[in-house]
Amino acid sequence: MTTTDLPEGALVPFTVYIDFESGDLTPDPVVLRRGLADLAGYFLSDVETATPADGDMYSVHEIRVPATNNNLLSSTTVLQPGKVGDEYFMTKGHFHATRDRAEIYLTLSGQGLLVMALEDGTTETKEMRPGIVNYVPGHWAHRSVNTGDEPLVFYAVYIGDAGYDYATIAEQGFPVIVVEGERGPEIVANPRYRRA
Amino acid sequence: MTTTDLPEGALVPFTVYIDFESGDLTPDPVVLRRGLADLAGYFLSDVETATPADGDMYSVHEIRVPATNNNLLSSTTVLQPGKVGDEYFMTKGHFHATRDRAEIYLTLSGQGLLVMALEDGTTETKEMRPGIVNYVPGHWAHRSVNTGDEPLVFYAVYIGDAGYDYATIAEQGFPVIVVEGERGPEIVANPRYRRA
Repeated sequence: MTTTDLPEGALVPFTVYIDFESGDLTPDPVVLRRGLADLAGYFLSDVETATPADGDMYSVHEIRVPATNNNLLSSTTVLQPGKVGDEYFMTKGHFHATRDRAEIYLTLSGQGLLVMALEDGTTETKEMRPGIVNYVPGHWAHRSVNTGDEPLVFYAVYIGDAGYDYATIAEQGFPVIVVEGERGPEIVANPRYRRA
Repeated sequence: MTTTDLPEGALVPFTVYIDFESGDLTPDPVVLRRGLADLAGYFLSDVETATPADGDMYSVHEIRVPATNNNLLSSTTVLQPGKVGDEYFMTKGHFHATRDRAEIYLTLSGQGLLVMALEDGTTETKEMRPGIVNYVPGHWAHRSVNTGDEPLVFYAVYIGDAGYDYATIAEQGFPVIVVEGERGPEIVANPRYRRA
């Protein structure tokens, strides 16, 4: 840099290193941790029946920039393997507060499913594995589910002003859930789903 | 999908697989190729002196969505190793037509430098190597340079309405160029740079 006279609203370029296996960022100043207690009520079974029964279910490692429509927010998520009853460990899931904003997921390690839903109950479920880009268009709530034995690590990028609406999912749930069946993951109707 | 009644402007979720080594996408319908002839005038030396002297200098593999401010455009770029005179192979580089739009680069393989410049001639140069996220804030023109012996492969994500201004760089150049020095890459002033 030879000047500090940046255009209004401009930032100075920076870099962050992602460990594709662990999802760790360097530097890593902002980490959100979600344990079993935080997910109480999100599974059909009581979270006290979870295996494993301790530790974080997932952590989100954020690359922070101003939450404006000209910036891109991004983060790695590290979702541990495990189950609550028959349901695999999963993220809470959310709509964007600004409904039409898209998001891109790039899976870096592990395997899972990305469950998406419109407010009318329409659902889409897509595979997550290393190298797969999941395009989550605007209007689709999104939740990731770890169906493997290793941590599921993905990098998400979204428009700065997308915002988060966790309340709708907390109240209504997703129309489908992902359970362990005899031959692997099964996507089944959520008996507790309540459409608005 | 259980319905085709998408909210206005909404898309159906989709997936694309990225080969982190080659940069190939599956499916891969849109590929832009740039050969030596396309880069004529971008280097101090004549592109006919390039080594290697044939093939594409780079290719861009796009994941197309509508170019609107609620969508995210993304692409892999595969930049071959080589030199024109002392200068390493590089992309043309551009500003965003909508100047304040940010972009994120995630390097997947190879090594290089990301050269960025403001319109006032301020420059920043950052390392590119696997796992590094380069945050390119709005207002910064950006060009990638392959300083290694293997293809440089990176995934770029940007806001759909960012747009491209290639003309400014085509006319003015970047304030700095990257040349091979005795101990490796050197960032030096571009004698042909013309500030607006």
